Amino acid sequence: MATLVLLRHGESEWNAKGLFTGWVDVALSPTGEEEARRGGRLLVEAGLRPDVVHTSVLTRAIQTANHALGAAGLSWLPVSRSWRLNERHYGALQGKNKAQTREEFGDEQFTLWRRSYDVPPPPLADDDEFSQVGDARYAQLPPELLPRTECLKDVVGRMLPYWYDAIVPELAAGRTPLVVAHGNSLRALVKHLDGVGDEEIAKLNIPTGIPLRYELDAEFKPVKAGGEYLDPAAAEAAIQAVANQGR
Amino acid sequence: MATLVLLRHGESEWNAKGLFTGWVDVALSPTGEEEARRGGRLLVEAGLRPDVVHTSVLTRAIQTANHALGAAGLSWLPVSRSWRLNERHYGALQGKNKAQTREEFGDEQFTLWRRSYDVPPPPLADDDEFSQVGDARYAQLPPELLPRTECLKDVVGRMLPYWYDAIVPELAAGRTPLVVAHGNSLRALVKHLDGVGDEEIAKLNIPTGIPLRYELDAEFKPVKAGGEYLDPAAAEAAIQAVANQGR
Repeated sequence: MATLVLLRHGESEWNAKGLFTGWVDVALSPTGEEEARRGGRLLVEAGLRPDVVHTSVLTRAIQTANHALGAAGLSWLPVSRSWRLNERHYGALQGKNKAQTREEFGDEQFTLWRRSYDVPPPPLADDDEFSQVGDARYAQLPPELLPRTECLKDVVGRMLPYWYDAIVPELAAGRTPLVVAHGNSLRALVKHLDGVGDEEIAKLNIPTGIPLRYELDAEFKPVKAGGEYLDPAAAEAAIQAVANQGR
Repeated sequence: MATLVLLRHGESEWNAKGLFTGWVDVALSPTGEEEARRGGRLLVEAGLRPDVVHTSVLTRAIQTANHALGAAGLSWLPVSRSWRLNERHYGALQGKNKAQTREEFGDEQFTLWRRSYDVPPPPLADDDEFSQVGDARYAQLPPELLPRTECLKDVVGRMLPYWYDAIVPELAAGRTPLVVAHGNSLRALVKHLDGVGDEEIAKLNIPTGIPLRYELDAEFKPVKAGGEYLDPAAAEAAIQAVANQGR
């Protein structure tokens, strides 16, 4: 039996402004920093001590890890970072206001881009101010690996090699990895772990800043589907709040 | 030719109180955090972009790296941590007030413990409140590797394997490592790089928060002895201030 802990980053400066972010590298808001520290305190209260940390290469996930680990007295844990844990690339929507996008393209198209499993938004132009072409952190990626847009299915495809090659070997060695990442890269992982269907995954939301613990069996599958949030009441309230958005 | 950057952590909560720290894991003071951010800004102003980061496993060095990288927009750099980059273990002096220790043991003994190359302070008892025995971050060290006290010679001995095995291969691959560590682990490294004598090293001080750049030749030796501080005037002033302490 192995333990895995997932943590979604807290509010970023662009979440607060209602903009599509994707691979644009924005920082946490002060609220997001506090969410991260709460996440660290929840680890301590649960007596849950990760052995190793994985983050995306996006600042908001890295800051979340730093604040959570700091609050837990675990700043010294070894850490690995990978673009494979990045948020979904939001294509031409990156930098756009969510409400305006919904108005411009209509409810149906908007929902399709946000929630369908396999329909990506239009690609982002390489000369767009929010393009990642030329960003030093991706300098080692051959051009065909750098996305211009992604649907959730694409995220599953590029995230899974990291799961198999970097995280599973640690679980197999008896270590407890903490994965600090994003709404969609974590949904992609949870989809894989729990075997969530392509339609069903649209309804699954992971709350920010609340560690989600999975106990995994010898085949690295969850003993209990969906895992357990370290603060179940807060997680349930956050999930309900998202479900009620726009009602 | 390869480039190496060294950065000593800024003021910690115990520096501010005048206590011997060593391996005791104290956080940066607000002044120390600002020193770290200044270090990051100096990297940007110098157009110096490290490719990879190394820290000790002590929080004050890790926080310094986090703040400096954040200020430089480089939070995403890969990072490795090792106890081999830790501050010198100060033995039974850990947690003691520096001024009181000088009074209690006299100037000569005090200076010997602080500045001699090969005289360690008395060992720290394993049941001392400031002992590292039982600290989870050292759980993977066989007991003979966990120091109870160290002189600078001991630090050179345990730091060099990390230099050779973790940092030199990166230099050889053309990468620029940033090493964020402590007064004495960096003095140990500088002693090795510049071939500083055992007596002479007593007089060498590395200022906090100012990146020190070394250009290294094909044998990983400095092209210019002592390297170059990114803010030479501030470094000189800080070195003079230390030299004048207690005069």
